[in-house]
Amino acid sequence: MPEPHDPQAHQFTELSDTEIFSAHEGGKLRITTSRELKTQRDLSIAYTPGVARVCSAIAENPALASKYTTVGHTVAVISDGTAVLGLGDIGPRAALPVMEGKAQLFDRFAGLNAIPIVLDETDPDALVRTITALAPSFGAINLEDISAPRCFEIESRLIEALDIPVMHDDQHGTAVVLTAALGNACRLLGRQLPTLKVVISGAGAAGVACAKMLLDAGIPDIIMLDSRGIIHANRNNLGEVKTELAQLTNPRGISGGISDALDGADVFIGLSRGHVSEDALQKMAEAPMLFSLANPNPEIDPDLAYRYGAVVATGRSDLPNQINNVLAFPGIFHGALAAGATEITPAMKLAASRAIAKVAEENLDAEHIVPSPFDARVAPAVSQAVAAAWKNA
Amino acid sequence: MPEPHDPQAHQFTELSDTEIFSAHEGGKLRITTSRELKTQRDLSIAYTPGVARVCSAIAENPALASKYTTVGHTVAVISDGTAVLGLGDIGPRAALPVMEGKAQLFDRFAGLNAIPIVLDETDPDALVRTITALAPSFGAINLEDISAPRCFEIESRLIEALDIPVMHDDQHGTAVVLTAALGNACRLLGRQLPTLKVVISGAGAAGVACAKMLLDAGIPDIIMLDSRGIIHANRNNLGEVKTELAQLTNPRGISGGISDALDGADVFIGLSRGHVSEDALQKMAEAPMLFSLANPNPEIDPDLAYRYGAVVATGRSDLPNQINNVLAFPGIFHGALAAGATEITPAMKLAASRAIAKVAEENLDAEHIVPSPFDARVAPAVSQAVAAAWKNA
Repeated sequence: MPEPHDPQAHQFTELSDTEIFSAHEGGKLRITTSRELKTQRDLSIAYTPGVARVCSAIAENPALASKYTTVGHTVAVISDGTAVLGLGDIGPRAALPVMEGKAQLFDRFAGLNAIPIVLDETDPDALVRTITALAPSFGAINLEDISAPRCFEIESRLIEALDIPVMHDDQHGTAVVLTAALGNACRLLGRQLPTLKVVISGAGAAGVACAKMLLDAGIPDIIMLDSRGIIHANRNNLGEVKTELAQLTNPRGISGGISDALDGADVFIGLSRGHVSEDALQKMAEAPMLFSLANPNPEIDPDLAYRYGAVVATGRSDLPNQINNVLAFPGIFHGALAAGATEITPAMKLAASRAIAKVAEENLDAEHIVPSPFDARVAPAVSQAVAAAWKNA
Repeated sequence: MPEPHDPQAHQFTELSDTEIFSAHEGGKLRITTSRELKTQRDLSIAYTPGVARVCSAIAENPALASKYTTVGHTVAVISDGTAVLGLGDIGPRAALPVMEGKAQLFDRFAGLNAIPIVLDETDPDALVRTITALAPSFGAINLEDISAPRCFEIESRLIEALDIPVMHDDQHGTAVVLTAALGNACRLLGRQLPTLKVVISGAGAAGVACAKMLLDAGIPDIIMLDSRGIIHANRNNLGEVKTELAQLTNPRGISGGISDALDGADVFIGLSRGHVSEDALQKMAEAPMLFSLANPNPEIDPDLAYRYGAVVATGRSDLPNQINNVLAFPGIFHGALAAGATEITPAMKLAASRAIAKVAEENLDAEHIVPSPFDARVAPAVSQAVAAAWKNA
């Protein structure tokens, strides 16, 4: 772990192109079978004529599909390639390495099958129809890297249409881990969530979901900013999503830019490509909590962040307190599938968040407000909490 | 191998429900990764931030997707569940065990990744649109168990729309293996393909593809029957596909039923649920070749078939000369992907057929006109022949 004030420590891990490309050559996934196919009898059982008995049983009782096929532990990782990492709309083919990487993470952290699906389609109606048609192939759907504000409509229509769990991870994965981290930061600093003044810079997928989840977690004073500044009810030309946000947030009716928003604020959450100056930081309340999550360049220069922040978190793997979705999504989907959940409810997400926070609580300090992505306790704890939240609903 | 005239031998292999269902429990596929994800550095390479370099490279040059993702060796097995085995239209969920079984065969016989996709959609326009949207996720598409005549239109529209290989295996897999078998039967009996009178009972997916492939292979005298009898140009209410068949086949302009068709015929190919009586068999030419492929009950009772036929083949795994698609599709897709083919041409299918026939030639006798499904020489030979046929086109 780097020393927080060592400026050399704030360089990104160096990865060479050779190292990266050779690690991707031939793709990253392998689809195999656990069953032997050595004899004619093996063939007759796995395929015709034996398989017909299994098909007939499922035709009679569709619920048996989760017992006699892989759907019970298979997640589709679906993208249209419109908002891939920081690269933007690079299309489905170029998005595939990310979806394969995500599928690896599902395997590695939750033992789930995950299938990368990239769609050559961007119209929301067409996407909803296509994904609905595909749904019987999977046990759950992880939407990935779909641009805002389309992602909100697409996700909510699919949740409505399908009886399997659907979650856009860019929204909720980030929100779940961030909420866990903020909860632990408060625990560490002796602060209470309902008293916090929170500023969220960025009203894309992650920003909107974080705002909603923090509202659910009991924080009433949240100010959001997009590229045009603070979102407030009197601003012109707000789209549907931001109109709703203007109702839900900014109870003090502030307008202006980031420096106006940060005046007296306790928490900064950066989910944008914006930049926060030292002047603006100086206007924040005492001992602020700084979640500066833009990758690779955090909104607040790390040196400044560590100078001003009582707790600092970033999206970077080479700095302490990485807000990494991988803490959330493997366990969330595992728990939802294990419980036979038909959706992922706000209560399940809050349960996931609390489970992540609880693992870190044991060794809580300013550089360990969330567990390491490799902490093997996390996914099982999240899965169990999520399944319990579904069953107890 | 059973004695051909032992009536006891003609019982299907007995499979108990317990044995079948336990072999399917939990599904048959496992999606894993060949790459280690043990350290933060592994994560940074496989996923963010390293993966962004690979995405950018593919965005710049889409052809790199086959090098740096799994698409280069991944086949989608896609069905709408409308014509599953002998079970008919049982829907997508109930079709899934078959698609998983097929994916196992792709892995077992060609080392390819295969992804089962079942679609809750039956309208041909919607299916074509959905599959086109999905296409960037895969290197090739194996259509499976889609009902006729919809399957013809859906396949040809997808071949037109997509630049990756698309093949409806129920059509062409059967046709390729049958053509190989018929060629070897002729070799064994000293007959010539162009002189044969051939009767095909069944004008579904497989029947139509067999007729077209046998025409391609140089057999002009083919008579086809559907459930209403012989297809001829003067029949009323022929659909588009059968109107075309009426033009291409039946050069002697015969009408009537199976017994009229078989009068003087050298070859019977059964791809229906029909039944052929002993009287009708007696009208065939000397030493006929009988391909009685209905499963589980061949159109010609096996005892009769062995009494009359000079060569007998069925679809059953417990009888000699099983016409099994698994001899064809793994190698066809492997070869097409290896060659970077953008479609599977008639020349590639004929090359596959010749490669299968050639493997069996070494030990050719009346009970070995095709290789065993487990003959490890088949898939590599087919792959090589198919790739060469694409490259030499």
